[in-house]
Amino acid sequence: MQNFTYQNPTRLVFGRGQIAKLAKLIPADAKLMVTFGGGSVRRNGVYDQVKAALEGRDYIEFWGIEPNPRVETLRKAIEQGKASGINYLLAVGGGSVIDGTKLISAAIASDIDAWDLVLKGSDRGGIPLAAVLTIPATGSEMNSGAVISREETHEKFPFYGRYPEFSILDPEVTYSLPDYQIACGLSDIFVHVMEQYLTTPDQSRVMDRWAEGILQTVIEIAPMIRANKTDYRTMSDFMFSATMALNGYIAQGVTEDWATHMIGHELTALTGMTHGASLAIVLPATMSVLREQKRDKILQYGARVWGIDGGSLDSRIEQIISRTREFFHSLGLAVTLTEAGVGAEVIDTIAERFNRTGVHHGEAANVDGEMTRKILTECL
Amino acid sequence: MQNFTYQNPTRLVFGRGQIAKLAKLIPADAKLMVTFGGGSVRRNGVYDQVKAALEGRDYIEFWGIEPNPRVETLRKAIEQGKASGINYLLAVGGGSVIDGTKLISAAIASDIDAWDLVLKGSDRGGIPLAAVLTIPATGSEMNSGAVISREETHEKFPFYGRYPEFSILDPEVTYSLPDYQIACGLSDIFVHVMEQYLTTPDQSRVMDRWAEGILQTVIEIAPMIRANKTDYRTMSDFMFSATMALNGYIAQGVTEDWATHMIGHELTALTGMTHGASLAIVLPATMSVLREQKRDKILQYGARVWGIDGGSLDSRIEQIISRTREFFHSLGLAVTLTEAGVGAEVIDTIAERFNRTGVHHGEAANVDGEMTRKILTECL
Repeated sequence: MQNFTYQNPTRLVFGRGQIAKLAKLIPADAKLMVTFGGGSVRRNGVYDQVKAALEGRDYIEFWGIEPNPRVETLRKAIEQGKASGINYLLAVGGGSVIDGTKLISAAIASDIDAWDLVLKGSDRGGIPLAAVLTIPATGSEMNSGAVISREETHEKFPFYGRYPEFSILDPEVTYSLPDYQIACGLSDIFVHVMEQYLTTPDQSRVMDRWAEGILQTVIEIAPMIRANKTDYRTMSDFMFSATMALNGYIAQGVTEDWATHMIGHELTALTGMTHGASLAIVLPATMSVLREQKRDKILQYGARVWGIDGGSLDSRIEQIISRTREFFHSLGLAVTLTEAGVGAEVIDTIAERFNRTGVHHGEAANVDGEMTRKILTECL
Repeated sequence: MQNFTYQNPTRLVFGRGQIAKLAKLIPADAKLMVTFGGGSVRRNGVYDQVKAALEGRDYIEFWGIEPNPRVETLRKAIEQGKASGINYLLAVGGGSVIDGTKLISAAIASDIDAWDLVLKGSDRGGIPLAAVLTIPATGSEMNSGAVISREETHEKFPFYGRYPEFSILDPEVTYSLPDYQIACGLSDIFVHVMEQYLTTPDQSRVMDRWAEGILQTVIEIAPMIRANKTDYRTMSDFMFSATMALNGYIAQGVTEDWATHMIGHELTALTGMTHGASLAIVLPATMSVLREQKRDKILQYGARVWGIDGGSLDSRIEQIISRTREFFHSLGLAVTLTEAGVGAEVIDTIAERFNRTGVHHGEAANVDGEMTRKILTECL
């Protein structure tokens, strides 16, 4: 194992009826802003539960944090928060609302402009925030990460702020999610795990098993959710998997990759494609292009997760990549750019952007503009 | 999944050379007491590393916390700590030293007698403590639990105090551990997992996989450690497994059992048997006596961990229990009371003690005095 330091201060509050605990969990003297996305929480009852739990409390609401939250929107919340002396934030929504709220938290406590904070990469000094999760996917409810977009320039960058003080996960709130959002959530979970697993082999036996355990779970529950998205047990496994996939538990002592995410973020920034949908296209192509470098781990993944362990190495690797594509297809997601209606012109744009900024993504720091061109060409 | 709330504040600091970080991790103004067991840390270099890291700092040392730490010993540290105005504790040792230090922490901050605190069961209001772990086994380095003995009455009870602020885990400190201590550590890890796993089936897919992942790891590394206990990778997996087995990660949303531990504690209290050694005897017997209640989970464990999935249900369960016994035997541990040189007279003593206190241990609260008699008879 690599040397590592790990601490995760977020309190996880999981289960039926837990939103009612908000009143106890948020300090009585908090000057609170509650942040939301669009209106789906009004339709699924979550807004009413939050309102009931906060009855008699002093708070303001901020609505309209969009998918791939934009700094332009967040600046409005920051301004309002500063003007009202807000000292506690509650994000009610999916990963985008929680991500956006992490930047609001940092910027309210800072004199630096919100986009400059994003470019700085991290700021832990924000005001406390907490979350009521409505979409299992990003893991933002139990980590410090966020991804923030800038509409003006079609840019999208990671930012690290505070961990949520607590996050409430009630699986029943997922019953009303649209199928497409569930599919993108499952894809996001799957690829989060792969970014922390499909790296150098033999680093940690336990971390390998735990990563495989989440992959096996996602594969097992995906068709069950398709059949019935109101089964409590299945939706619990879905919601819990999302949090466990990106709260740092499976990253202890192992190297990480994240090249697929970096390329996926560019696809989203340029085309508006949902995050999980972009990953379903990019991951199999990354595996294919980097098959030599990632060979041992691809073979381990194939054997332990898919039971593929016969035949020549080459044919096995082909089979494992195909099986991975089929899985994403089975979720109802496109697995090529063509299928997703995205033209080849994005390839040049992204490759040139990576060449210009001189980035080298991935565990081996070899996913530069030219490697990205190869990966995206494989996505066609 | 069951409703649950989970938060673990301990910072894990893992890897080679990490003991040197003590100077930075302990607040500069701490009035520190460092607690130790016997003298093994003087021989393996850990004491020198701790001393070097704390050079120039204000601290006192307390030596002699024994295996199965006794309240009689801990009272001396508490008295000394109160007299010296100690406000921070550093435990350097295995689970017993850390457990004992949790009670010292609580008692220094309290007016209640130490044994009364144990009988109360928990007290979170202690002074901060941290740990340098030397023996992978109990998980005490990343949880709030402790087990405290009272010599006078041969009693042994659990107590919950503070979580360590941080714990330093350097796998190299395990290279000099005696084989028997390693065997007992592996047994302890294995049974910790089983207490959180061999319960009601179908509660959480991820928790099942993670529990199985630790069991698979322990089974895989046990013979490797026997062959070479100075391989960094293997000893990292050993040390990391111990912490992950009892830091709450694998207990999220699932019921727990702990009957094997409760019976094991009695064996230790009466005979002085090492904790891990007592569990190796009791676990297979518990599985055998409760085979109907635990049937589905025993079968899942057998299939996924040992690859046993053919034949009649009865013969499969027999095979799975035998395989578990063989595993403990392969560690060099006794698997019966007779083999351990313990006579049948302990059975009456323990059964009567449980009858007298009216306890009902285990997930189903059905392990009372009479059930314990059955289990211990199966241990002969």
